Amino acid sequence: MASFETDHHTCVSFPTPRSFQTTFKSDLKETLFPDDPFKQFKQENSLRSLKKAVQYFVPIFEWLPNYNFRMFRFDLLAGITITSLAIPQGISYAKLANIPPIIGLYSSFVPPLIYAIFGDSKHLAVGTVAACSLLLGQTIGDVVSAEENPTLYLHLIFTATFITGIFQTALGFLRLGIFVEFLSHSTITGFMGGTATLICLQQLKGMFGLKHFTTKTDVVHVIHAIVINRREWKWESAVVGVIFLVFLQFTRYIRQKRPKLFWVSAIAPMVVVVVGCVFAYLIRGKDYGIQTVGDLKKGINPSSIQNLTFDSKYITAVIKAGIVTGLIALAEGIAIGRSFAIMKNEQVDGNKEMIAFGLMNIIGSFTSCYLTTGPFSKTAVNYNAGAKTAMSNIVMAVCMALTLLLLAPLFSYTPLVALSAIIMSAMFGLINYEEAFHLFKVDKFDFIVCMAAFFGVAFISMDVGLMLSVGLSLLRALIYVARPAICKLGRIPNSILYRDTDQYPHAIQEPGILILKLGSPIYFASSNYIRERVLRWIREEQELSGSKGDVVEHILFDLSGVSTIDMTGIETLVEVRRTLEARGIKVAIVNPRLKVMEKLIASHVIDKIGKENVYLSIEDAIESSHKSLLSNDFADHCDAA
Amino acid sequence: MASFETDHHTCVSFPTPRSFQTTFKSDLKETLFPDDPFKQFKQENSLRSLKKAVQYFVPIFEWLPNYNFRMFRFDLLAGITITSLAIPQGISYAKLANIPPIIGLYSSFVPPLIYAIFGDSKHLAVGTVAACSLLLGQTIGDVVSAEENPTLYLHLIFTATFITGIFQTALGFLRLGIFVEFLSHSTITGFMGGTATLICLQQLKGMFGLKHFTTKTDVVHVIHAIVINRREWKWESAVVGVIFLVFLQFTRYIRQKRPKLFWVSAIAPMVVVVVGCVFAYLIRGKDYGIQTVGDLKKGINPSSIQNLTFDSKYITAVIKAGIVTGLIALAEGIAIGRSFAIMKNEQVDGNKEMIAFGLMNIIGSFTSCYLTTGPFSKTAVNYNAGAKTAMSNIVMAVCMALTLLLLAPLFSYTPLVALSAIIMSAMFGLINYEEAFHLFKVDKFDFIVCMAAFFGVAFISMDVGLMLSVGLSLLRALIYVARPAICKLGRIPNSILYRDTDQYPHAIQEPGILILKLGSPIYFASSNYIRERVLRWIREEQELSGSKGDVVEHILFDLSGVSTIDMTGIETLVEVRRTLEARGIKVAIVNPRLKVMEKLIASHVIDKIGKENVYLSIEDAIESSHKSLLSNDFADHCDAA
Repeated sequence: MASFETDHHTCVSFPTPRSFQTTFKSDLKETLFPDDPFKQFKQENSLRSLKKAVQYFVPIFEWLPNYNFRMFRFDLLAGITITSLAIPQGISYAKLANIPPIIGLYSSFVPPLIYAIFGDSKHLAVGTVAACSLLLGQTIGDVVSAEENPTLYLHLIFTATFITGIFQTALGFLRLGIFVEFLSHSTITGFMGGTATLICLQQLKGMFGLKHFTTKTDVVHVIHAIVINRREWKWESAVVGVIFLVFLQFTRYIRQKRPKLFWVSAIAPMVVVVVGCVFAYLIRGKDYGIQTVGDLKKGINPSSIQNLTFDSKYITAVIKAGIVTGLIALAEGIAIGRSFAIMKNEQVDGNKEMIAFGLMNIIGSFTSCYLTTGPFSKTAVNYNAGAKTAMSNIVMAVCMALTLLLLAPLFSYTPLVALSAIIMSAMFGLINYEEAFHLFKVDKFDFIVCMAAFFGVAFISMDVGLMLSVGLSLLRALIYVARPAICKLGRIPNSILYRDTDQYPHAIQEPGILILKLGSPIYFASSNYIRERVLRWIREEQELSGSKGDVVEHILFDLSGVSTIDMTGIETLVEVRRTLEARGIKVAIVNPRLKVMEKLIASHVIDKIGKENVYLSIEDAIESSHKSLLSNDFADHCDAA
Repeated sequence: MASFETDHHTCVSFPTPRSFQTTFKSDLKETLFPDDPFKQFKQENSLRSLKKAVQYFVPIFEWLPNYNFRMFRFDLLAGITITSLAIPQGISYAKLANIPPIIGLYSSFVPPLIYAIFGDSKHLAVGTVAACSLLLGQTIGDVVSAEENPTLYLHLIFTATFITGIFQTALGFLRLGIFVEFLSHSTITGFMGGTATLICLQQLKGMFGLKHFTTKTDVVHVIHAIVINRREWKWESAVVGVIFLVFLQFTRYIRQKRPKLFWVSAIAPMVVVVVGCVFAYLIRGKDYGIQTVGDLKKGINPSSIQNLTFDSKYITAVIKAGIVTGLIALAEGIAIGRSFAIMKNEQVDGNKEMIAFGLMNIIGSFTSCYLTTGPFSKTAVNYNAGAKTAMSNIVMAVCMALTLLLLAPLFSYTPLVALSAIIMSAMFGLINYEEAFHLFKVDKFDFIVCMAAFFGVAFISMDVGLMLSVGLSLLRALIYVARPAICKLGRIPNSILYRDTDQYPHAIQEPGILILKLGSPIYFASSNYIRERVLRWIREEQELSGSKGDVVEHILFDLSGVSTIDMTGIETLVEVRRTLEARGIKVAIVNPRLKVMEKLIASHVIDKIGKENVYLSIEDAIESSHKSLLSNDFADHCDAA
């Protein structure tokens, strides 16, 4: 026995708890720098490490030196293709934000240049996005009307974009991408679906050529506005719109069937715009009441730095708009960049992306651009067109500059109905009911989170829907912490493996010994639960074994899954142990992990429990319990005798 | 090999995922009914199960039938002892809430009776508490001044107590004790310490006999008020106060040294009140400017049900006061009842306690009582005086009724300075610097949570301090979910145990095989982290082994610690696997637990990974990897040849 104890003692390590500095540094690194970005700068040569640092923060220096003409051919083609998508999207999404359509075109000139310098993704194409445009317009529209005071409204949009940029850059520098991670995939799916539904319904205004409409953006108000204005419905407009829509959906269908023909759907919106312009010009649309975009001046982006407005009257709304749209834009842009990188087995650094997005929005807000990010549709086209580097964004910027300088006035004939068809077609792609169904099948809670975002956005408002969904996600995380799973272990026959008896019902329980695997973490929020649950296990065990006559005499807590414990948790363990020992049940703990062990030592719990009751494996603990059970039986026997 | 594979397949269980109803029911039970309270009602005999149910909801039926005279002797003594504490505390704490002192006495008559019927703890003594009295007064004082409109103010206090009662009862019936669990022990320690500091400082008003004072309750304002009113300082009053205080602290010291003499400190406040009354009466205190309580009418509690005020002007403040003080009162009361129960190896059911507290506050609010719970000081005295059941609360109620009917006017001579000394002495006991130091040593984050509550309460306000501290606790829980610990495993020499190589540095790593134990949960918030961290492990491993020439060819994910996974987590696992396989690293997973396995099956991930790559133990997985490594070597060998 003595030799066994010695063996055992050499096995379990009881380290001196590390110093606070050490653990704090390591925790901070895990929380904020999981990818260890500084490692690469620690070269022997200081010049080389400087070069590495510059390349880290300005990725263009990484790829440009190795750039060649073969790559440029691909990027040129991709750049031209995405420009043909950027023009109609720019005009359309600016309309969603209630700002002049030219701003949408400006936004595809400066930001892509900035992204090409600082961005980490090779496939991401920069541009405006529908959901954020609508949300931005809606939030600013709550304090200033876009119709009554268009200048102030526009200036506030620029200011919100500036705030977005500052916020995104700060998140990137402070490595707080952890915030973005709380926007789960399910939330984004539901939010995008809800927004797409809203936007589609809103486009019915353009489709039916309505003059009067609601400024509200929930489904009920929008449908109501369409119905009460039915006298204004223009069937001519609706017919043209439906034809455009059918054409656009058909090209999407072609892309799905023949992925190589992706360019058909990529240039389709441009075709719709051009056809629409020609059509409106030829039939003198205005006479038939066909509304057009109107007023697109020649010339590239004017400066807007003097327009940023930090009036205390509006600043709350502006900051709210900037931060919320900034977060959504980040979540969307980073997720999209990452998902395309994965297809090519590359990696995208989320923190660099945040800085790149932030810088492009800051500089964008100085040059008459509004919120931009990496939209899915454009990025997919860029990827499919064979873009090799961020150079395709530079090509797009150059093409857009030429368009602004030479062709902009031509697009002023674009009929609104064509834009509505383009927007609706894009939105159909964002209503991802397949994903929702998949969530329903695999994870009901994720499905609820997704539906909360969807219905919240559709029936209440975009920010309420988002908050509802994020709130539910956080609730789930907190419930997880409050209710860590505890299970009973049994031995798999013919092995020394101990596994959950629910999962492996043929696992054998040792008589008189209850083995519980405690879930992680043992925190303030879970300590009551753990106490109740352990006592219930014992109660149930006693009832079960009551007939057989075996009473629980030993309980083993397998802590190998517990990665951390706090003060309340430690006290709970001590209390539970005291309660159990008072009932004559011996407690042993198995395989506490480093952090847990350090705290148990620091709080003198190990001294109370006794080092001899801490085991490295369940097997050791059982062996030792058997010995004590045997000696008990022996004692009973002696007593009886 | 074939036979091994077959063996292996019989080991890992791939269950058909359970139906949603089954998992939902089991999750709901774990979340809300961890103690399985309905079990005991499921008797064969329906009459017996009805009896059990009544006894469950009304615990007095459980203990009263077995009650005997021997127990009553103990309870009688304890009841009288706590009455002697209840009178000075009742008067003092009512002063803290700025309500007439008689309300404090009323509050020790009706609520203890209700608790005796519904309460689950045998040792808890019901009464008013300092922190909640101050917080209640402060929150209601924000909307109505206690000096200018005392009647309305008092009615709002009753209404807030009513709200507290409804809220507590609802939490108990809905089994939402989980909310109370988020008030961690560290938060309560800091909050109590901060409040005690504040209250002590406020008592300087009574000690120095000041007439003018501030209504603010932060340390800075209170000290400022004492200093600027230094002309009003009455040295006579201060001297008397200090004498009382020294006497009270001395009796506490006696209790600490000789626990059997606990009754000395228990009756000391009553002694101070009586001596104070006699002294004030004899020297005609009023002539010397010694302020007394004044105006205590004879008679028991009048009805106050007609006074409840649900005016929309005040309702927000009232609801806030009711809910926040209700939560704190619950956290304090339940924790105290539980900690005394543990000493006797009994259990207290938190949900029953909530219902009991709720009912006593609802009925209290109808009978001119304000917020009551189980205060530490009174409960400790009750326990030490040998209380056997809740009967001691009934004894206290009867004594209090007699006091109200016969002796109340006598206490109107109590000098305020005596009350201040009693309050200060009680508060000194609540500043638990030892606990704070213990937190500092064991868990720095708990220490920060505690200090946030302490300094927030002391320097900003009570509710801000509380929110700050709870917010930090929640942040910690969320960071835990966002950053689950991942560690590398190695084999302990001469065993088949695989343990963290940081914790057991002598553990041996198999060449070419990296074993990572993933932390729980794999959720939306942690998925990016897990991806980054796994890739970094591989990078580091490659660098380390680069010199030795071993390249990672197999990676094993030990999922035995992962108790749950969500949709984003599943997608991350798939992505990580794809990235690794593209680099020629084979991925296997080890021991996924029931819930995780079910989701992996439902989302067809197991099909993608292949059932042959799922192992029950690391040993099996390594054995299989070795075979494939060998066959690779063999292939290399053949190629070379």
